[in-house]
Parts: sequence; C-alpha cells; structure tokens
Amino acid sequence: MTGKFIDQDLAQALLYPRSIALYGASDDTAKMGGRPVQFLQRSGYAGKVYPINAKRNEVQGLKAWPDLQSLPETPDQVFVLTPTESVIAAVRECAAIGVKVVTILASGFSESGPEGAQREELLRQISRDTGIRILGPSSLGVVNPRTGLVLTANAAFAEPDVPSGKVFVASHSGSMIGALVSRGKARGVGFAGLVSVGSEVDLSIGEICSATLDDPAIEGYLLFLESLRHGAHLQAFAREAARRGKPVIAYKLGRSEAAAEMAATHTGALAGEDDIADAFLKDLGISRVEMLDSLLEIYPLAKRIKLTDPAKGGTRRVGVVTTTGGGAAMVVDQLGIRNVVVQSASQETQARLMAAGMPGSVGRVLDLTLAGTKYEVMKKALDIMLDAPEFDMIVAVVGSSARFQPELAVKPIMDSAVHEKPLIAMLVPDAPQALAQLTQAGIPCFRTPEGCADSIASVLARRVPGTPATVNAGLNHDAAHTLSEAQAYALLDTLGVPHAPALTMPMSEKPTALPFDFPVVAKVCSSRIPHKTEVGGVVLGVRNAEELEAAFTTLRTNLAMHAPDIECDEVLVQAMRRGLAEVLVGYRVDPDAGPIIMLAAGGIWAELARDRSIRLAPVSVDTAHEMIAEVRALKSVTGLRGKEKGDLDALAHAVSAMSQLAIRPESRVIEAEVNPMMIMPHGQGVIAVDALILEA
Amino acid sequence: MTGKFIDQDLAQALLYPRSIALYGASDDTAKMGGRPVQFLQRSGYAGKVYPINAKRNEVQGLKAWPDLQSLPETPDQVFVLTPTESVIAAVRECAAIGVKVVTILASGFSESGPEGAQREELLRQISRDTGIRILGPSSLGVVNPRTGLVLTANAAFAEPDVPSGKVFVASHSGSMIGALVSRGKARGVGFAGLVSVGSEVDLSIGEICSATLDDPAIEGYLLFLESLRHGAHLQAFAREAARRGKPVIAYKLGRSEAAAEMAATHTGALAGEDDIADAFLKDLGISRVEMLDSLLEIYPLAKRIKLTDPAKGGTRRVGVVTTTGGGAAMVVDQLGIRNVVVQSASQETQARLMAAGMPGSVGRVLDLTLAGTKYEVMKKALDIMLDAPEFDMIVAVVGSSARFQPELAVKPIMDSAVHEKPLIAMLVPDAPQALAQLTQAGIPCFRTPEGCADSIASVLARRVPGTPATVNAGLNHDAAHTLSEAQAYALLDTLGVPHAPALTMPMSEKPTALPFDFPVVAKVCSSRIPHKTEVGGVVLGVRNAEELEAAFTTLRTNLAMHAPDIECDEVLVQAMRRGLAEVLVGYRVDPDAGPIIMLAAGGIWAELARDRSIRLAPVSVDTAHEMIAEVRALKSVTGLRGKEKGDLDALAHAVSAMSQLAIRPESRVIEAEVNPMMIMPHGQGVIAVDALILEA
Repeated sequence: MTGKFIDQDLAQALLYPRSIALYGASDDTAKMGGRPVQFLQRSGYAGKVYPINAKRNEVQGLKAWPDLQSLPETPDQVFVLTPTESVIAAVRECAAIGVKVVTILASGFSESGPEGAQREELLRQISRDTGIRILGPSSLGVVNPRTGLVLTANAAFAEPDVPSGKVFVASHSGSMIGALVSRGKARGVGFAGLVSVGSEVDLSIGEICSATLDDPAIEGYLLFLESLRHGAHLQAFAREAARRGKPVIAYKLGRSEAAAEMAATHTGALAGEDDIADAFLKDLGISRVEMLDSLLEIYPLAKRIKLTDPAKGGTRRVGVVTTTGGGAAMVVDQLGIRNVVVQSASQETQARLMAAGMPGSVGRVLDLTLAGTKYEVMKKALDIMLDAPEFDMIVAVVGSSARFQPELAVKPIMDSAVHEKPLIAMLVPDAPQALAQLTQAGIPCFRTPEGCADSIASVLARRVPGTPATVNAGLNHDAAHTLSEAQAYALLDTLGVPHAPALTMPMSEKPTALPFDFPVVAKVCSSRIPHKTEVGGVVLGVRNAEELEAAFTTLRTNLAMHAPDIECDEVLVQAMRRGLAEVLVGYRVDPDAGPIIMLAAGGIWAELARDRSIRLAPVSVDTAHEMIAEVRALKSVTGLRGKEKGDLDALAHAVSAMSQLAIRPESRVIEAEVNPMMIMPHGQGVIAVDALILEA
Repeated sequence: MTGKFIDQDLAQALLYPRSIALYGASDDTAKMGGRPVQFLQRSGYAGKVYPINAKRNEVQGLKAWPDLQSLPETPDQVFVLTPTESVIAAVRECAAIGVKVVTILASGFSESGPEGAQREELLRQISRDTGIRILGPSSLGVVNPRTGLVLTANAAFAEPDVPSGKVFVASHSGSMIGALVSRGKARGVGFAGLVSVGSEVDLSIGEICSATLDDPAIEGYLLFLESLRHGAHLQAFAREAARRGKPVIAYKLGRSEAAAEMAATHTGALAGEDDIADAFLKDLGISRVEMLDSLLEIYPLAKRIKLTDPAKGGTRRVGVVTTTGGGAAMVVDQLGIRNVVVQSASQETQARLMAAGMPGSVGRVLDLTLAGTKYEVMKKALDIMLDAPEFDMIVAVVGSSARFQPELAVKPIMDSAVHEKPLIAMLVPDAPQALAQLTQAGIPCFRTPEGCADSIASVLARRVPGTPATVNAGLNHDAAHTLSEAQAYALLDTLGVPHAPALTMPMSEKPTALPFDFPVVAKVCSSRIPHKTEVGGVVLGVRNAEELEAAFTTLRTNLAMHAPDIECDEVLVQAMRRGLAEVLVGYRVDPDAGPIIMLAAGGIWAELARDRSIRLAPVSVDTAHEMIAEVRALKSVTGLRGKEKGDLDALAHAVSAMSQLAIRPESRVIEAEVNPMMIMPHGQGVIAVDALILEA
C-alpha cells in the first residue's frame, strides 16, 4: 500500500476541502461541466470555489480564473471537467502547484484501447513522480452532505437536500451513488459521504476508505463493487475497520456464471470466480448483501451484531415473535433458505410465556395473534424471548397494526430494544411511518421478508479476520514454473502434508529394490511435464519387480514418442493408495484476493456441482473443519447411514498445513494443488497421491 | 371435484351478493364482530346488510334481527362472527333457510385437537347433506372492491379506499390479504377481489377461483399458498385458467428445508417437499415468485408472455438496454443467477445500431450512457432491439432520469411498448412517479433488480400444461401393498421399461439351466420382503451353476434366520449389468400434487446434493429430455471431456414410459421405483436392475 495507512491529509482534501478548483467549469448548468458549480452553490458549501475557464470572466455568477497558477491559493482538490484530450495537461498543472487530490471526470483511458492505455500510464507516472493523488478517471466525484460538498457531475444530485447519515459510500459505479441517495431518501437513510472511484488508476476504494477511518462522523461503510481489484488495499482497510468495530457492507456484482466469466477473462483462471470473492469478503468481516435494498436497511443490524468467530463455533439462533402467522412464515422460510437457524422456544421459555399469560401458540415461532397488538402483551413477550438463552437475536414480525397504529405497534419494540441482544423488526404491511420511527431510533427494521433474511444471513456470514498472509500478492504469475512431483513432495514434507511413500530412480537404469510394498505406480518425473498422463507418463498397478522394469521401458518409449524434445531421466515410483473418498486441496495466490486455500470434492461430478469451500489463507484447524462441513460430498464419509467414517481430523490438519504457505517467509509458491488427496478410514490419516506446485 | 366446474351461483353469492347477514354482528366497532358492518357501510356496499343480534334492536345504526328465520329474504351470504361453540348451530340455521354460502370467522376446529376435529367433521356433514357451501373456518372473509363488498374482519380494511384492479387474490393466510392491499396501494396496484379461505373444510382456493373464471372483470390471479392441499381443485383451475390465458401467479411458503420438514410430517415421505410443489406449479402454467413484492409487480409481465412450450424448446433470450452501466449489471447478474439467458446483440443488430448513430457501447448490454436520456436516442435504440430476432424480450434499465425527468424517461418506453415483443422497465433510482405512469399504462416495470429478475425468471419457468393424469389421486396410501420384484418386472414389461433378463425358480429345488449368461444375482422374491438386503436376501456375482446352487442354500439359511415368519419359496435369478452411470426413476401418486415422475442421480452423494428433476406425470419424451438436462450428475455421460456417452435417448423413453402409469386405466400403482436404472453406452439402452412397486 502506498503512503502511510491513514492519510489524514488525503481524507481532509477529499471530504473537507477548504477550497476547490473546477477545471473547465461551464456556465451552462445543462452541461455536465456546469453541474458542480451549480450543486456546490445550492448546497451551501462554505469553502472557496474557483471555476477555471479561460474563455470567461464569470461562471454562474462566480469569478472565473484563466488557469490554476493565477489562483490566490492552492486548492485542496481540483475536479477536472475537461474532455479526455486535455486531462493530462490539467493534471500536470495541478501537480505543478502542489494540489493534493485531482479528480478526473472524463473517460477514454485504458478501457478505450492502446492510446487510452498510454494516457492512463502517463497519469500513473505523474502521480508517482509528483505525489499528487488521482481520483478516477471516469469518476463522477465526491460528496459530503455534512459540509455541503456536492462535488459531482451526477445529475442525481440536482436535488438540493442530500440526506446526511453515519455511513460512507464508495462505489465503482458512478451512477449508483445517485441511486443510493434517492433510495436512501425514500427509506429515511442518509450518508456520511459518497465517492465515485471510477477506474482507480491511483486512489482505490480501499485506500480512500482507510483514509477516513479516524473520522468520528463515519461509523460504517457501504461498498458497491464491480470486482476485487486493488484487493490488498481493500483487505487492509477491512481488517482495520473490523478492529475498530466499524461495519463494512458490500454489494458485489458477479454472482452469476455469466458475470463471473466476464470478470474471469481479464483476471485469469480461478480469479473473478464469485466464491473466491465471497470468501474474501466474509473472511475480512464484510457483510455481503445480495439485494440492493439491503444496502440501505442492513447498517443498524451490522452495527449491533458481533463478527462471527470461527474459533467459537459459528451458529447463531434466531427467535421469532409475531402477530401474523403468514407474515412470520415468510421470514422463517427466507431465513431457512439461507441456512439461518430459526430456534423454537425452550420448555423453560414456553413455561415463562404461559405463566405470563401470553396468548396464541408457541411453535417454531411465537404467534401472539391479534392479541399481540396490545402494548403490554407484545412488550412482555419480547422481553421473555430476549432473556431466553436459546436465542441470540429476536425478530418481531408485525402485522397490520404497524400501518394503522404505528405508535402502538412500534412502542413495545422501541422499549424492548434496549436489551443487549439485537431486536429486529419486519413489517408485513406497507408501513412507512413505523419504518421511519424505527429507522430514526436506529432499530434494525425491514420492509420485506427477503431483505430481512438477506441482511441477517449476510451479517452472520462475516467472520473475524484471521492471520493476515505475508506472501507478496504481487508474485508474477507469468514467470511461473512448475516443480517436479518429487520436488513438490519435498515441499509438502516441510509443510507436514502427508503423501504416499515415493522415491525417484534414473529412468535409464534397472529399478532397484523398493522400501515399500507393491503395487506401485511409476510416473515420469520432470518439472517440464506438469501433465504426465498426456505424454503417457504414468503406469498404474505395477505388481512386482518385473512389471516395474517393464514400466520403465514403457515410460521411455512413450516419452520418446510424445515428448521427444523434453529431457527427462527420472521416474517417480510411488506406493498406490485407495481411500474412502478423494478430495482436491488447493493453495493459490489469487491476483485480487491474495493467498486462498480451497477444499473441493474430487472427480468430475463434484466439478459439475461446484462442490467446494474457499477461505483466505492461512486457516486454523478449526476453520479447516468448517470448510470440510461446507463440502457436501464429504458428508458421505461422516459415518452417515452406517458408511465408514473417514479421517476428517487428519484432513483438517492437512488443509491448515497447506494454507501455511501464505505466511511462509520468502515463499514463491503461486499455486500448490494436491489432487487427489486420499481420505483414509478414521485414524489412518490422509494421503496425497499427486501434487502440482507452481513457483514464481 | 364437487359441484359443476364453474359454479356461477357460488361466484355470485361470494363476490356479488345482493344481501348479506352478519351473524353475531357487534355494535362495538373496536370488536372484530363489529368491523364488517362498519366496513360495509363505509365502503358504500349497495346490497342489503342484515345484522343478526338477538340482544339488540340496532347495530351501528342498522336494524338488528333476532335470527335468520325472521329476515324478509334469504341472504346470498352469511358471515358467522360468533365464537367457536355457537358456529355449528349458526351454520345449521343458514342451511335451513337455504343460504348459498356461509363464511366462518372463528378458529378452534381440527387444528385445536379432537374436539375441534369433531366440530369440523360436523361442518363437512352439514355441507354434504344440505349443499350449503362453507368458507373457512378461520376465514377473515371476502372483499370485492368493485362493488364495495368489504365483508371482512381484517383490521387492514379500516382504510376505506381498497384499490380496484384486474387480479383476484386468494390466500391461505387471512392477514396477507390486508398486507397485499396496503402494499398494492403503495405500488399503485389494485385488485378485482380478495378472499381469505382459512382452513378450507369445504370451499378450496381452486374451487373458488374456478367459480370466477367467467368473470370478465377478473383477468388474472394471485395465490398466497401455505401448501398444495386440495391439489386436484387447484390443478383443474390452473389448467382452465391457462387455456383462457388468464395468468396465475403464486407465492408459496415452504421453500426452506425447515418449512419443508414441517409440511412433510403430515403428508408423508416425499410429499410437502418443495421441489414437488415447484414442479406442480410450473407444470400447470403458474408463475411461482420467490419475492413478496413480485406478487404485486409481475402481473403485466405474466399477461404479456406466453407459457413456455416444452415441445418447442424452452429458452428465451433477454436483451438489455440501459443509460446506467452499474444498474444494468445488477439486472444481468440477477437474471444470470436464475439461469435466464441475457443475449448480446448480433452483428446485424450492432450494425443497425451503429448506422442509427447510437452512442455508447454494445457488450452484453447496450449501454447508451447519458445520451440515452434523450427521447429519440432511447426510442430508436428500443425499436432496433425489439425488432432484432435474437431477442424475445427487452429490458430497459433506466438511471436517474427516471426520477428527475419521469415524463422524458418514461415516454420512449411507453411509445415503444406497442411492439409485439414485451418491453420491460427496471428503474434504478427511487422513481415513484415513473413507476406509477408505467404501471398505469400496464407496462411491466420493477423497482428492484431482484424483483425484476425474479418475475422474468418465474414467468419463463411456467410451462404449457401437459396431458392431465387420469388415475385417482385419492388412492388409499395406507392400504398399499408391495408387489414382488417378479411382478414388478411384469408391470414394467407392459409399460415398455427395459430391465435385466430375469426368471424365478422355487427356492427349495435345485436351480435349472439359465437362458442368459453368468454372472447373475440371486434374490429372494416375495411381495412381503420389499427390502431384500435387510434379510440377507441378495447374493451378487454368482459365476456358475455350482455357485448358484450354493446361493440358494445361503438365501434359505438367511431367510430362516432373519425372517422366519415370512413364507417365501421363490428366488429371482437375474443377469448382472453394469452401466456408465446409475439413476433412480420414480413414479408416485403424491397425495397433494397427484401423479409425479422423478429422475434422480443414483447413490448417496446425489441424495446429499438433492440432484433430481420432477414433473407431473405423464411426460412426453421431449419433457423427459428436459428432466435429464436438469440432473447435474448426468452431465458426466453426455460425452463431456472425452468421457463415454450414455444412451440418454433410451433413458428419456424409459422415463416417459414409466410416467404413463398416470393415465393407465384402473392403475392402482401408488409408487413405482426403479433403482438403480443402469445407463448403458450410447445405442445400448438403459436397464432396470431393481424395481419396487406399491399398489393401493
């Protein structure tokens, strides 16, 4: 990460500039270049505004200046509104007079072919050489409703009143900051600031958010992400935000195969796949929501609920109280789909409810029926449920009274919400007043069962960030080279990942006696032959010395035929092992996410079902056990239906051991894949029978 | 189904009653029993209203009557508002004077134990004996906004103005009709009527909706379902509605495992599982939405788009036009998750767009950027896209202009919507005005990307209903008995489902020569031993005559040991077969859904992954091929990655053949399961190697 971690000056220049220059400001408010002046004047921004426009004396009533040099002071921030061609010159001018931050509106850089890519490289160079920080290109600007800083060309800000709040918005998409403001208004939610980061040639979402971490007015973050680019910055920010208890919420595009493919094209093999991004976000304590509206509704909940600690075991149980069975059933259903446990009241709790003369029935939810519309009934019920140890949080699903007697319906919730456990409200009818009151009071409240469940599930899915990786995520993938299988096993030995006994022999000579039993497999062993089978480089089921000698001949012939130009004089002879099940254990330094560890079911079928679990590396044995639980195929070796139990403890240790590559000093390993890893019967461990390792 | 299919009198008495009696009406509007009188007077209901209350002369200003007999006429409908205990008497009184429909508000019937169950049986009896139709118990009543018939005790209807519209709502949950009305108001959507059916002791959702099919004012249906009870009525209604092009939309609870389990407990093994309900709804042409808001937004889309015809191949391709890249990406992503194909413009279309001087870029979506806010640009773009043969529908994703210049943003969509292809709008900002205008104009429009994608996906998922089953869904499951494996094969023979050659021999004698080759399997063959392995009744891999004789001895000994009391003197000797893959083909008469056919991957792993496809039986070979495509595990025998291809045509024929049980005259088969069915290499067919059949 460039610069010091929390760059106060950057935060100040971005969100609290004392003066702004608008480079190429237009007098015509209909033009994009005219908007910022108009917005800033409307919103009552207190700082100085300097329109730069050589052709005019005045711009929208403000004195216009011919250039930056002639300004009476150096502005904290400059918004460049000129066309692409003149951007470089403008940025040079900014750098020359020592401007801290320059924001670029124009597009037409790397996304627009070689010429644009050149322009972009120039920008990077200027930033490197002069230290000026660049926001954009393709940035619609930055907004701070608390100071009237409406420094944007986004038409959505034509409405003067930008609602102010506690969460800061950073978005890859410029149009979305406008959409969030309008939707926020409708939902009674405001923002502590909004920034459109554009194509992030210099300043990234992670860096910008990090810079604001000391700002007491910013209590949480909403991210609208198109990808995980600049993942290292994002990771550093998320870890520090988690440490400070400032919730980070993200809506990330790319959940669908289609979108994933699109992303994959420019970031390579695994990268861009959504389950990697998902693991990245969750492992950094970020709540990833799957619905747009959740972005606006989730914050109070994210603030109230602690990050899940894998070491302490994840599950948390939700209790539901309602006045409307049908409404509650929707919430239970939606929570169930997302694997959130809806807990029934314990015998003790049911007894307490009965003793308190609660009406209705206690099944999976406490349904108070219409009687629950009485204040004292609902209040009492909520208090008993909140006190019950079997619940970690309570959801109150309120029926029509939320619309017709908002005060009455909302009051017991307000009064019970003081409890240390989170109390969440979901309103079944359209009930804007009740929603507004609850939102005002900072009580988590939702207008749809899906949004309620999405928010609860995404908050529970975030985890306390684990040990950070130390390997350099910037390892050069292009220069990668493969280790021979023998070298790979040597590395696995140092990690403590068990593999089938093996030794190498010269291919040209007669094989010597083996220190392990037949049957064995004979494989050509060379760093230049990563895919042995393709050259006929594997002979399976060798039962004795004679067959082994024959195998060597076969390998020589096949090699001569299929890979004449490759010199390979070693054979790896390995004891054959069969397990109860096969898995793939893979470590990889992802260009965006950094080091990750993956556990996947073996075989084509698993591949078709995408049956795999991913985490940021390194992972503890506890976390490895969580991963094992997430791979459906492995249920078949948990002792289910009298089937034999596999050694899943050994598997957990192997997965954790492999993941330690992420903190191995000087490790240049880019990819390490054991496939298959044999899962032996309980107590007999796991055994790698093939391994492929790539180093930078 | 009781009564004639479209019961005009029922529809009239329910929705257009000329006179109503309110049995046990209260003068106190705060009481539930007081609400209907109040609501009816407020809403300007034109018919006669007779409060029945022996204790008073007047109820809320209306003359009160001591009993039904003393009324000047026989009311079309009576709403019984009295407590549970007096309901039976009231219903008897109604029947005595020839009331057509009586609605019961009280609960406390079968759901509340044996005594309640008795009361419920009494109600059924009265209905059977007298022909009176019963709505409820636990019904909150019926509402017809078009006539001011607000005959309900649901507090939500305290608001006088119930919005009127074209869709009729039928709900298992009484509170939801209120929630839908309030949410409908907020969304500018009204209803042609709403009914709370309660526990359906007599009148079911299916019957009630069927009765309204001739009503020209009712153009579509919204169903809120807790289960598929009375599935036969629902099916008959849905088929006729599909025939008439009146869209049916359903929100059904029970998608989560938890909910499914709850349902399963009372309807047995398979039943209640959500994928059966899902198949049932889709096969009957019903759009099943997964989001509550979709219920209110989907209708115009459901009206515009034809049901998918399996015979014609399902896929339909969506084109996307936008002014905001970020917003469009959300829609594309959400569609992708739901496997809806978002199509890129063809070369021809791109050329036409370029020729028309369209700005922006054409990738997976046509992004017009800000220029798209100009009327002529958006209009032209929409027209070119709508005309392009590669699209079946177009989604316009509109940015901030939808909020700031609603007229301008909405006009090109309104003007282009005349095209025969559906044009759908999704508004990224909060844009109530634009939404209202589009909704008014009957143009499909959505306020969230999730709702938009959910609605499109659910509409595309509905299928033209196939051949209806003829077997009696009421077959008694309890009295079911198992066929012996030999009898099962005999039945499969008559259906044309191939199985491995087999013959039976007396267990006590020496086995005779075989008409097929060894190796074979020897199994005990008795209708009283459905699970042969549990009694050691199977000997595999028998290689010759000696081994076969030995196998007979083994079977005799095992049987004597494990099932001494079961007389079984037959052995089934069967040729052993191994396939490329194993599947389960199952036919079942589901108590709710009726005859269904299921294709599932074999083995425990598939079970864990719930990898199966279900349809209403019978199915055509085309549909069977669709089912095969839905079972992920079967991708492994499609010739993928050089793996051998399985005979999937033969499988499709076998699945279709098995499903014909649903239209077999006099069939008493309740369950027929082939497990495993071996899939042989391409051209070599499929072979059943075990079969279990249950008959009523």
